[in-house]
Amino acid sequence: MTADARELYKVLRYVRPLHLLSARVVAAALAGEQVSMGIRAVLEQLELNGPASVPEIGRVLLLPRQMIQRVVDQAADLGLVTAEPNPAHRRSSLIVLTDPGRAAFRRIHTAEMRKLAQIADKLEPDEITAAVHVLDVLAAGIAQLSKDDPAAATRDSR
Amino acid sequence: MTADARELYKVLRYVRPLHLLSARVVAAALAGEQVSMGIRAVLEQLELNGPASVPEIGRVLLLPRQMIQRVVDQAADLGLVTAEPNPAHRRSSLIVLTDPGRAAFRRIHTAEMRKLAQIADKLEPDEITAAVHVLDVLAAGIAQLSKDDPAAATRDSR
Repeated sequence: MTADARELYKVLRYVRPLHLLSARVVAAALAGEQVSMGIRAVLEQLELNGPASVPEIGRVLLLPRQMIQRVVDQAADLGLVTAEPNPAHRRSSLIVLTDPGRAAFRRIHTAEMRKLAQIADKLEPDEITAAVHVLDVLAAGIAQLSKDDPAAATRDSR
Repeated sequence: MTADARELYKVLRYVRPLHLLSARVVAAALAGEQVSMGIRAVLEQLELNGPASVPEIGRVLLLPRQMIQRVVDQAADLGLVTAEPNPAHRRSSLIVLTDPGRAAFRRIHTAEMRKLAQIADKLEPDEITAAVHVLDVLAAGIAQLSKDDPAAATRDSR
């Protein structure tokens, strides 16, 4: 028996409010920091995936290269990242997390995890595993729809 | 045994890409329509919750009243909604879906559901039920964090 599209749509309906609400909570937690939402997102990518070029970071964060470049420049001014020669591409340096950058992200993220732990206490591990699987299949399916549709693909390349 | 915050964070990490990707797919599907993303969202609220005032729609969609008013005006120009006297508030009319508005939303939504059904085929009903529960607890928990935090509350009232 396969699940009904209507039930899956319920999942999708949580996505927009969750995105807006969690962005507010993250922004509020950063209110006393020099680190902006954008810098936090770039630091997280570098912590998770290691050094990356600006276009690579943009692809993961689904944001235009120009926007990432601006955020990377701000992070570099704060000493949180540094640009190193890229062995793969001569013209596109590799952005690397500095020790202060790693420390800043970990400090911010630890505070976020403390808040999230209060919510996790109300859930069973199995439920969360199921949720991650559903979201994974949903994200892959929607990414595929986005590729299949020429109008969505055009937006993709902006 | 309660779930780990790190696992729950995996759920949260899907929220932003899913929001961006699904917005692209919805926008692409609307490319040939007079209905914009904003109008689609307002029509959906009215279909789900019945007639509502502009501030009420804004609260549900987490968008400023002024933005909702603009979208409602566009939808009214297209004959998709109409404003009726509000028995509860003399100064804030009730926005009501017209028959063409209901038909437009249902047509658009049926096409969306058809696409979603292909993805739902890959999932079990139990998994989706678990995912909806996790997202529900997560959304309620994050909304509470947003209320608890004075900086987030300020953003809330914008």
